[in-house]
Amino acid sequence: MTDTITISVDAMGGDNAPRAVIHGASLALRERKNTRFIFHGRQEQIAPLLDEFPELRPASTVRHCETVIAMDEKPSQALRKGKGTSSMWMAIQAVKDGEADVAISGGNTGALMAMATFCLRPMKGISRPGIAAIWPTLRSDIIVLDMGATIGADAKQLVDYAILGSALARCLFDDDAPTVGLLNVGTEEVKGLDYIKEAGRVLTEASGSGFTYHGFVEGDDIGKGTVDVVVTEGFVGNIALKTAEGTARQVGSYLRSALKSNLMSRIGALFATSALNALRRKMDPRTVNGGVFMGLNGIVIKSHGGTDEIGYKSALSLSYEMARSRLIDKIGDTMQRFPIKVASEAPEAEPEANSA
Amino acid sequence: MTDTITISVDAMGGDNAPRAVIHGASLALRERKNTRFIFHGRQEQIAPLLDEFPELRPASTVRHCETVIAMDEKPSQALRKGKGTSSMWMAIQAVKDGEADVAISGGNTGALMAMATFCLRPMKGISRPGIAAIWPTLRSDIIVLDMGATIGADAKQLVDYAILGSALARCLFDDDAPTVGLLNVGTEEVKGLDYIKEAGRVLTEASGSGFTYHGFVEGDDIGKGTVDVVVTEGFVGNIALKTAEGTARQVGSYLRSALKSNLMSRIGALFATSALNALRRKMDPRTVNGGVFMGLNGIVIKSHGGTDEIGYKSALSLSYEMARSRLIDKIGDTMQRFPIKVASEAPEAEPEANSA
Repeated sequence: MTDTITISVDAMGGDNAPRAVIHGASLALRERKNTRFIFHGRQEQIAPLLDEFPELRPASTVRHCETVIAMDEKPSQALRKGKGTSSMWMAIQAVKDGEADVAISGGNTGALMAMATFCLRPMKGISRPGIAAIWPTLRSDIIVLDMGATIGADAKQLVDYAILGSALARCLFDDDAPTVGLLNVGTEEVKGLDYIKEAGRVLTEASGSGFTYHGFVEGDDIGKGTVDVVVTEGFVGNIALKTAEGTARQVGSYLRSALKSNLMSRIGALFATSALNALRRKMDPRTVNGGVFMGLNGIVIKSHGGTDEIGYKSALSLSYEMARSRLIDKIGDTMQRFPIKVASEAPEAEPEANSA
Repeated sequence: MTDTITISVDAMGGDNAPRAVIHGASLALRERKNTRFIFHGRQEQIAPLLDEFPELRPASTVRHCETVIAMDEKPSQALRKGKGTSSMWMAIQAVKDGEADVAISGGNTGALMAMATFCLRPMKGISRPGIAAIWPTLRSDIIVLDMGATIGADAKQLVDYAILGSALARCLFDDDAPTVGLLNVGTEEVKGLDYIKEAGRVLTEASGSGFTYHGFVEGDDIGKGTVDVVVTEGFVGNIALKTAEGTARQVGSYLRSALKSNLMSRIGALFATSALNALRRKMDPRTVNGGVFMGLNGIVIKSHGGTDEIGYKSALSLSYEMARSRLIDKIGDTMQRFPIKVASEAPEAEPEANSA
């Protein structure tokens, strides 16, 4: 890896592609001038946009792909149709081939995970990949994983997520021993979740090798920022993320109604305009955009599909930082330092297409 | 049941007991004058409080219990120590004996669930009890269950929760066919959660018999109020509830900081005082306080343990309404109308003491 970071971009992924993607790239380039882009997608749609954002042109290569994966396509279907031909697949392939340091797409999450797993393969020793979210909290940003890459987990998978998440935390937060917590319902006498308790035992023993194990955390510890890395099974992580998004929107909506409720409150809102705008920016989901696919032999970032150029700019900046801070090396290093081997109950990951 | 509603109260449960409990009862009585209370707990602590709230005295009976269950006691331990002697047990026993219409406690949730299950037993046909939360949303209050009464679920349990939750919705919202959704990660091709898909098939077929089945909902549908009843397994429900609480506190904290950030915003906040106070009341967790234990032969309400008299007043009012609207009859009616029998993979519920 040289000083230059090359990002391989699925220019066709997401609701506002390719315009929002290309526009976002032009914004990202302004802040990180040593970025290079490889855009995969329909030449006839991308070329006019590069005319519109001419500063991007010298930093960009366009690779024409005819096939585009739809947002509602099943992963297995997408893999059959798009392997070797689609903008999504080709974006990932460029990482595998060493042409790019990181790949990004705003397309169909399930399809992207299936293709990334099939193309890049899980890292040696990691049974299944996870998706990490960067979650703003009262203390600072933290990492929560898995957001739903895999449904169902065993102790080995949670331990893997702890290794992956703490490596990501070391990249993002420059902290050599990030704290890790296991998401639980908080009581000691919990039935049916033996795999969480088992993972807790392993992490207690391994604490100190690249992370500090904090213990169990509860749902409200996420917003408090009690630990740097919250580890949970994918179904639960996905529900937690979406419930939090829903709650934030709900409270925001209450606030807007309250401030419109009478003349005095409208006047008050005028006085507080700058503060309320700062609050809006703080709560803007576009500023923290990008799920990090963890545990594969290459970095893939998923942007929200419905976002605009600001959201893509954030996701592209995140991609850049992941590559610059050598995430893959940090994961390998954490795995090497990890003192305990745990057997998984699950078979090694197979891409969706084979099992569906 | 006469016009009078008798509430059996564990006067010793919760951090601020018995003062907050008795004070809350005096507030609840003002609004619902035909309430009668049986307070279970330490006579020497309760008597002086009844002197302080004399309007409560004619509506109250005190039953002395020496034993009090601690907040951190394990359910199995609490059951061994408190069966037949503790204020918590005796509060439930009064419902079993037909002396009271409903029981309430702000004590240890696990202990309360274990005692309620052991004393009242699950209703015929219900494999395991659930805890329902009343959740404020952008549309109106909705019901979400299970909040963690049971960890792990199968299709039969989700179907049970749908029956129980829709009966509760019919009590609370005066709606004869409340909509029911199953919490899921939203994609069609989900691995490992076959029991949710199986429950979906059963509910699709049974839709119309006391509820309308909506389909799968995602985490952000809770805050939107997409359906009247959200059904989920207890671990997930507990994480969703606490994550939402954490997020609401986080956004509230952001808002307070924003309004204090500069002189103009402080002036704005002064103008908007009444609107912001209304918002604070709307977000006050005390106004919606009370988990409803569902699926037992009797109604038990769990109040937040850390709440004050306002919180207890809300939980006591909820208890009153559950009894008045004949929740147990409505559940029985929904079960009778339910056209399909589902076999459970789990054994019939056994109280914690036996299995722990």
